[in-house]
Parts: sequence; structure tokens; C-alpha cells
Amino acid sequence: MDIEQLAEKILAGDRRALARAITLVESRREDHRAQATELLERLSTSGRQALRIGLSGTPGVGKSTFIESFGMLLTGQGLRVAVLAVDPSSARSGGSILGDKTRMERLSREPGAFIRPSPSQTHLGGVARRTREAVALCEAAGFDVVLIETVGVGQSETVVSEMSDLFLLLLAPAGGDELQGVKRGIMEMADLILINKADGDLKPAATRTCADYSGALRLLRKRPQDPEGFPKALMVSAIEEQGLAEAWNEMQALANWRKENSHWAANRAAQARYWFDQEVRHALLARLETDASKAEMERLSAEVSEGRLSPAAAAERMLAALKAQ
Amino acid sequence: MDIEQLAEKILAGDRRALARAITLVESRREDHRAQATELLERLSTSGRQALRIGLSGTPGVGKSTFIESFGMLLTGQGLRVAVLAVDPSSARSGGSILGDKTRMERLSREPGAFIRPSPSQTHLGGVARRTREAVALCEAAGFDVVLIETVGVGQSETVVSEMSDLFLLLLAPAGGDELQGVKRGIMEMADLILINKADGDLKPAATRTCADYSGALRLLRKRPQDPEGFPKALMVSAIEEQGLAEAWNEMQALANWRKENSHWAANRAAQARYWFDQEVRHALLARLETDASKAEMERLSAEVSEGRLSPAAAAERMLAALKAQ
Repeated sequence: MDIEQLAEKILAGDRRALARAITLVESRREDHRAQATELLERLSTSGRQALRIGLSGTPGVGKSTFIESFGMLLTGQGLRVAVLAVDPSSARSGGSILGDKTRMERLSREPGAFIRPSPSQTHLGGVARRTREAVALCEAAGFDVVLIETVGVGQSETVVSEMSDLFLLLLAPAGGDELQGVKRGIMEMADLILINKADGDLKPAATRTCADYSGALRLLRKRPQDPEGFPKALMVSAIEEQGLAEAWNEMQALANWRKENSHWAANRAAQARYWFDQEVRHALLARLETDASKAEMERLSAEVSEGRLSPAAAAERMLAALKAQ
Repeated sequence: MDIEQLAEKILAGDRRALARAITLVESRREDHRAQATELLERLSTSGRQALRIGLSGTPGVGKSTFIESFGMLLTGQGLRVAVLAVDPSSARSGGSILGDKTRMERLSREPGAFIRPSPSQTHLGGVARRTREAVALCEAAGFDVVLIETVGVGQSETVVSEMSDLFLLLLAPAGGDELQGVKRGIMEMADLILINKADGDLKPAATRTCADYSGALRLLRKRPQDPEGFPKALMVSAIEEQGLAEAWNEMQALANWRKENSHWAANRAAQARYWFDQEVRHALLARLETDASKAEMERLSAEVSEGRLSPAAAAERMLAALKAQ
């Protein structure tokens, strides 16, 4: 593969070249990895930055409809939008959350939109690196907005928020006592909580849910990266395309405030350091991922959980086993 | 030191022997570590279990007063209570949160109570191991309740909740718009939120705050280890000794439910596995803690945050540097 030519095509905004490049960064073959590294180095000087928006929401909240309506709003304003997904469960469930492009039929036909399903890797670390690199490719290809979607399996929200400039949480209205149960800790990451389905019969429930979350957000400590009034909860109807322009205004207001108050650049630099640190730690801990190590960890872990060995004594034995390997 | 004799004294409930043993597990000397390991092995067969209660609350919420009043309630019922602290900041602040025993004057004079300040170690991993081992020593010494206190610096709440059977969050009433700002993520751990200072002029504010948190807790997803109605928020007045018996009843009800539904033993086994895993990872990552490694990480990290090197490329260089060391 001619990497120089591929880089040029990406910089020219060629979507097929972008798709090929993402396939390259997803590959586990060593020669592909070397090519991917070379490609990313070449593109790193483009200086282009997109607004990276992380989006989490459990199945049933209308995430696909939201992405489609919100994406159409942005492309209608002349903006180019890329949609990526982080779904470490996709290998297990046999299909990615964005695998079925027909779920975003209109958006997938838009020339200004690019939709890429989650790769089927069970390993979150692998998905994280691939998605970060795909985001960098989309930025080099001149996209204005990169939406990074997750269903929030395990730690995937942390992964997405650590590569986003803004983080959105999409919720459905809670009816009466039937509570939807936001995953604990998720409010830590949200910049904007969007209560979807604020239409028809669900409007009153959406209003109540929005008030509940507004109240809950006020109980949390103010973060330095938030201007007055953020994080906030808003109502939207993706299906009726209501409230989306207002939500987009809020996102832009927040992004601009962070840019003017140097939080934007500081956040991106901190994220890069975070990922560097994660990559190093991940590589060091990879010694625990061999079959022999896993078997020994499992054996010792059983002794620990049965109280026959203290955690410290078991750890000493594990380290001795690693040295002997 | 005669470890066999020390073990016997601890099993007989000798408080001075217990204090000496905690000093031993706190020591960083290698010969002390070997003795500590031997001592813990000897005591591990005692089969004694205390109720381990984690307690977090920022300065100003009345934590010392609460521990004193709550501790007196327990000793008044004939129970033996040990109080330990996890405060990784104590080295910096020049004194531990429990350093001043006069803050718990009555309790420190109780024969059924044992109070131990946080050791002055900056390193949270070190504090965590020492505290786990101190908890094990207190259990072997026959204490019925072990209170593990933290001010919630950095990750210390996670550390405490991972060694507790129950986790309490102590809050002060919020007055009007003046919100106290619970650290995001902390509600994930709380089994019981206690609104202290529900007395005098602050009673109405405490009632409102309690209702606010009750509402917020209902918005969170139910955990398998919680019976109906938990986690819950309650009002107490540590200074007027109001609501403490009710809070203790709730703690016992929760503990009993978890014991009957096998969550108790499963939780302790999971915690032991967690600490084993943490000890192994900590030891593997210790290679990054040498002065040479730190300098190289810092140098590469700066290049990454300035965009001159990708996180993945920088990580490859760091690993090469570690191999060459």
C-alpha cells in the first residue's frame, strides 16, 4: 500500500481512502501496524481539529434516531460529520451497534456524513486505540464533527469520554416509578444530559425526568471545565426533530467557552498524556495476559478468595512465577 | 520480636500487642515485612470477622463527633470498636486525620475502643495494604466493628469501600443554594447516606437535603447487593446523639440481609481477589516508579501533549527504554 498516496487522498477528504485507512488501523498484522503508524505520523501535521462529541445511551433510548436527526441538522448547516462507535461487546453480540446502516438510512446517504461501525474486538484496549486513531483520521480528512457513540458496556464510557471534547448522555423519559437507572458514575462524565422522546404522550414524563436530572446535577460538585449552568439537562425529540438546534447551540456555547478559557487545549493535552500512560501500562501488564499467566492468576486467586492465602502472599508467588517464565 | 507470642496476645485481645503489630505492618523494613507476613499467616486461622464499616465525609461535616457518638453507642451495647483511618494526604498535611485523639476524647478512654491514626505514607497503595492488614489484626483481636475512616482524597474512597462490608457517606445539611458538592462517583459506593447536624436551626435544611439525596439515590440503578429500599439517606445528629440507633439498626439490617443472601461472603471473596490483582499489577508497574523511568515518562509525555508524538509511538519508545535499563 502506498502510504503517501493514501495520506494525500485522506487530506483531500476522500471517503473511500478514509475507510481503507480505518481498516488499516484496525488490523492486528504487524506490517499493517507499521503502515498505520507511518500514516498517522504523516497526517499529524495537518493541524485540523474536529469537535469530538462522545455520546452514551442504553438501547431503547433512541440513539440511532438521535444520531440520524442530529447528523442531518449538522450536514444541513454544511458541516461534515463522522460517526464512530465504541462497543467492546460487538464481538459477543455478533454485530456492532452501527452495523446496520439502515438504522440511519438518511444520514448514511448524505455526502457530508461518514458512518463507521465498531470493529469486532473483544478487548477494550484495542477498541480504544483503534477509535482514537480513527478519530485522528477523520480530523485529517476535514470532518467538522466526530460523534463517538457507545452503549456503555463496562468501562466504554470512560474510554469515550477520554477521547471527547464534549460528552452527551441520552436518556428516555422515566414513567412514574419505573426508573431507568443511570449507571452510577456516569453523571461524572456528562456535559449535557438529553432526555429524548419529549413528544406525544411521553412529554409530561420527559419534563419530570428532565427536572429530576437537573436537580441531581445541581447536587454534584462544580468542575473547573464548566461555565455557569453546566452540566445541564435538556429535552429533545429526535423523531420530531425538536430541541436539537437548542442542544447544538448549548454544545457550541460550551465548546467555545472551553476554548476561550484554555480548557479545550488543556483537556486535549491531558487526554494525550492519559493515553500514553495507558498504552505503557497496558504493555507492561500484557505479561498477565498469556495463557500460562492467566492460569496461575486464576489458581492463586481461588486460594485467596477461599482465605487460604493473603493477597500480599499470593502476589509474591505470582511475581516469582512471572520471573521463572 | 517473638511473633508467636505477639500472635497469642493479639488473640487474647491485648490492645498494646495490637498497636505493636500495626506498627509492624506499617514498617517498610524488609525484616519487618517478613515478620508481618508470618504474623498475619498465624492469625489468619482465627476465623473471627468484624463488621467492617467504611466512612467518608469531607472536613466540616462532623466526622469526628459522629465517630465518637456512634462508637460510644456501640461500646454501650458491649461491642468492641476499632477505628482506623485512610488518609494518603497525611504526610503532606503534616498530621493524620485521627492524629489528635482529643477530638474523640470520650471514645479514646473507652476500654472497648481502639483508635489508630493514619500512617504518614504518601503512597495510596502502601496505605491500602497497611490498612487491610490492620483490619485483619483488629478482627483477630476480637473487635466486633472496625470503622475505616477517610476524608476522600483522590481514590481513597475506592480503597476504603474495597475493604468494607458497608460504606457510609456523611454529609452536612446544604443551606438554600449553597450546595456541598458530593464528589461525582461517590454515590456509587454509598450504602447509607447520613445527613449529620439534623439539630437546631439546621434541622429544616437537613430535612430538605435528606429528601434531595433520597430522590437522587432513586435515580440510580439498583445493585444486586441491595435489598429493597437501599441505599438510603437518613438524618442524624451526632452532637445530640439523635438517629444513631436508627442508623445502626439500618446497618445491621443491611448486613444481615447480605449475609442471608450470600452477598457478604461473595463480597469478601471478591475483595480478596481484587486486592491480589491490585498487588500483582502494582508490582509490575513499579518499574515505572524509578527515577530514571519517571524522567523518561515525563520527557515523552511532554512530547505527546505538545502533539509531536502519538501516544502509541511514545509508548513504544518507553518500552524500549525499559528494556534497555
